[in-house]
Amino acid sequence: KVVETAKKYGMRIIGPNGLGVFDNYSGVDTQFVPELKEYSGKMLLATPRPKPGNILFGSQSGALGIAILDALYGANIGIAKFVSYGNKVDVDETDMLLWAYKDPKIDVIMLYIEGIKQAGRHFVEVGNEVSKKKPIVVLKGGRTAAGARAAASHTGSLAGDYRMYEAAFKKMGAIVCETLDEFIDTVKAFSMQPPARGYRITIITDGGGAGLLATDASERYGLEVNPPSDTLMNELKKGIEMGKLVPFSTFSNPIDVTGSATDESFVYTLRAVLNDENTDCVMIIGLHHVPGVTDRLPEKLLETIKSCGTYKPVVFCDVGGAEYALKFRDKFENAGIPAYPTPERAAAVLKKLADYGVWLVNQGEYDNYLKTWISKRG
Amino acid sequence: KVVETAKKYGMRIIGPNGLGVFDNYSGVDTQFVPELKEYSGKMLLATPRPKPGNILFGSQSGALGIAILDALYGANIGIAKFVSYGNKVDVDETDMLLWAYKDPKIDVIMLYIEGIKQAGRHFVEVGNEVSKKKPIVVLKGGRTAAGARAAASHTGSLAGDYRMYEAAFKKMGAIVCETLDEFIDTVKAFSMQPPARGYRITIITDGGGAGLLATDASERYGLEVNPPSDTLMNELKKGIEMGKLVPFSTFSNPIDVTGSATDESFVYTLRAVLNDENTDCVMIIGLHHVPGVTDRLPEKLLETIKSCGTYKPVVFCDVGGAEYALKFRDKFENAGIPAYPTPERAAAVLKKLADYGVWLVNQGEYDNYLKTWISKRG
Repeated sequence: KVVETAKKYGMRIIGPNGLGVFDNYSGVDTQFVPELKEYSGKMLLATPRPKPGNILFGSQSGALGIAILDALYGANIGIAKFVSYGNKVDVDETDMLLWAYKDPKIDVIMLYIEGIKQAGRHFVEVGNEVSKKKPIVVLKGGRTAAGARAAASHTGSLAGDYRMYEAAFKKMGAIVCETLDEFIDTVKAFSMQPPARGYRITIITDGGGAGLLATDASERYGLEVNPPSDTLMNELKKGIEMGKLVPFSTFSNPIDVTGSATDESFVYTLRAVLNDENTDCVMIIGLHHVPGVTDRLPEKLLETIKSCGTYKPVVFCDVGGAEYALKFRDKFENAGIPAYPTPERAAAVLKKLADYGVWLVNQGEYDNYLKTWISKRG
Repeated sequence: KVVETAKKYGMRIIGPNGLGVFDNYSGVDTQFVPELKEYSGKMLLATPRPKPGNILFGSQSGALGIAILDALYGANIGIAKFVSYGNKVDVDETDMLLWAYKDPKIDVIMLYIEGIKQAGRHFVEVGNEVSKKKPIVVLKGGRTAAGARAAASHTGSLAGDYRMYEAAFKKMGAIVCETLDEFIDTVKAFSMQPPARGYRITIITDGGGAGLLATDASERYGLEVNPPSDTLMNELKKGIEMGKLVPFSTFSNPIDVTGSATDESFVYTLRAVLNDENTDCVMIIGLHHVPGVTDRLPEKLLETIKSCGTYKPVVFCDVGGAEYALKFRDKFENAGIPAYPTPERAAAVLKKLADYGVWLVNQGEYDNYLKTWISKRG
């Protein structure tokens, strides 16, 4: 067999039924799908390679793998390596974990899995160790009865009982996503932000309705939306006295700095919230439609986060699909603050950052993880 | 009071605490937020007005309302009217329904609601009649305990027990959305496609992994993913004999036409599926990365749908965020086939089209609705 011959000479086999590998740093690119494709007589970017970043993406499905690369490109997410490991006659998901563990360029692992045929226990043991250092974000195809039937005819995987997989993923501290949007949103956040030590979220918004959707989603997804403590309340009231916040701001949670807010209102509020003992993670909704919000908000908020030195995850949300919204969200991400087009997607991601942080705390590994995070990304 | 004076002279008052109204056909635009905003020295489109279409959008929240308009613009969705009715001293959500009912330009009603203060029963009665003619798509803010607290401080609404609202919405046949993405995805589908008579979905795909995610999501959301009937199976096998489908296609549900598929493979399969008695709605996943898929697929599929004359809802999914994916999805939508960037979002929308269709069937109104739909949009 090919595998035995390869082993004899110290080689590994990837595939079959894969679409190649792609290393953004060495330049190795064996994907056999061309980047450009004809559209109305012009050549358009059709199979993009995402920008360099700190993610390893392993995919059991080839076509879905490159489609996800396309989505990562569109979502402004950088990756280090892509491996389409297909039907894994040799290299499998456990290898992905081990490679990522050793590679200093990789901080986050994303895996699209259909089925783990053999050595599932080994995968969980390795995963458990790797998770302490680098988050493993998983999307699992073939979860339902109809899905399992489809998986069998696709990669011949025994998709098995999803509850078994879920229990295994949970045990190893992996972060399990429900949808493709969540998969992509989540790796983006993990590639930029530290995990949260707990579930207490504080929401800052310049729009009441958007804050409301964020609150509902946070509570539904399992985050805690508590009213502000007296200390935080006093800080916020001081903000009004100092002219940083408008007098008709509303200080419940969400903290509504209103449509009359300026960049400075966000900066002042974010500082108070990051310093608040009762906040584990922060969502900022900065609808750009508001007159006082400018394109310098991303840098200002980044500076605020750095100067606070509290290392709580912060995600940003602006709603919209026209020029300003698209550029604004990109600018946030280039400043290292992940940005989402809806409050619900931002909330889903913070829940994942909290799940992982709480898992690390329970493993006694949170402080180690944070130390590494600060040295590399803080 | 203003309202009494206005009534005396036959006028209606919209607001207070609204952001104006916008009529895409008459040109009336009282929104006081400018379209352009400064970004790095240039003026960018920041508060766009969506293209003309067949939707009335009523929003209790002003800022969220214009942010949603921005998202509708980005999602390629046309609207007829936008009304930011705010704290509704006079005009309220029941008026939205009545206006939409009478306006031949409007086919779909979308409402962002925080609380219905008074005359809730009247709203349900009116809604029940309107729903038989025009779908009402609802997003409700203030559903959880924390959300209700936030709603009270936002529009002063008594958000109330969400289960009560849900029951009322269900009774009137309204389509209730869980998230902002779903709200926007859903109105897009309703503005273009007929409702489904039942829950049986058939999925056509050129990528096994993407088909798998679609299958899982469909089953989770409440659609039925059944294996193909013998009749359909025979039609598909005939497709292989005729050279329309590649011999290694997989005919379970999803029907996987594989990465070797051409436009003609999709056309042939779609025709067979639309003619299948056991299919109520169709998802086509056409990953554009596949070499045989061209930019003429949208027109070809549209033509196939028209020539079949079966009036089952069809939605399209391509995954990706680079140039080709964006243009390709837009082209589908300009051809009247709503397109989504993930299989899960496409599945969520088909579930809504089936919920509404089944409600219409139960009211004995499906055939009437379809007749009107065909005369206006078929």
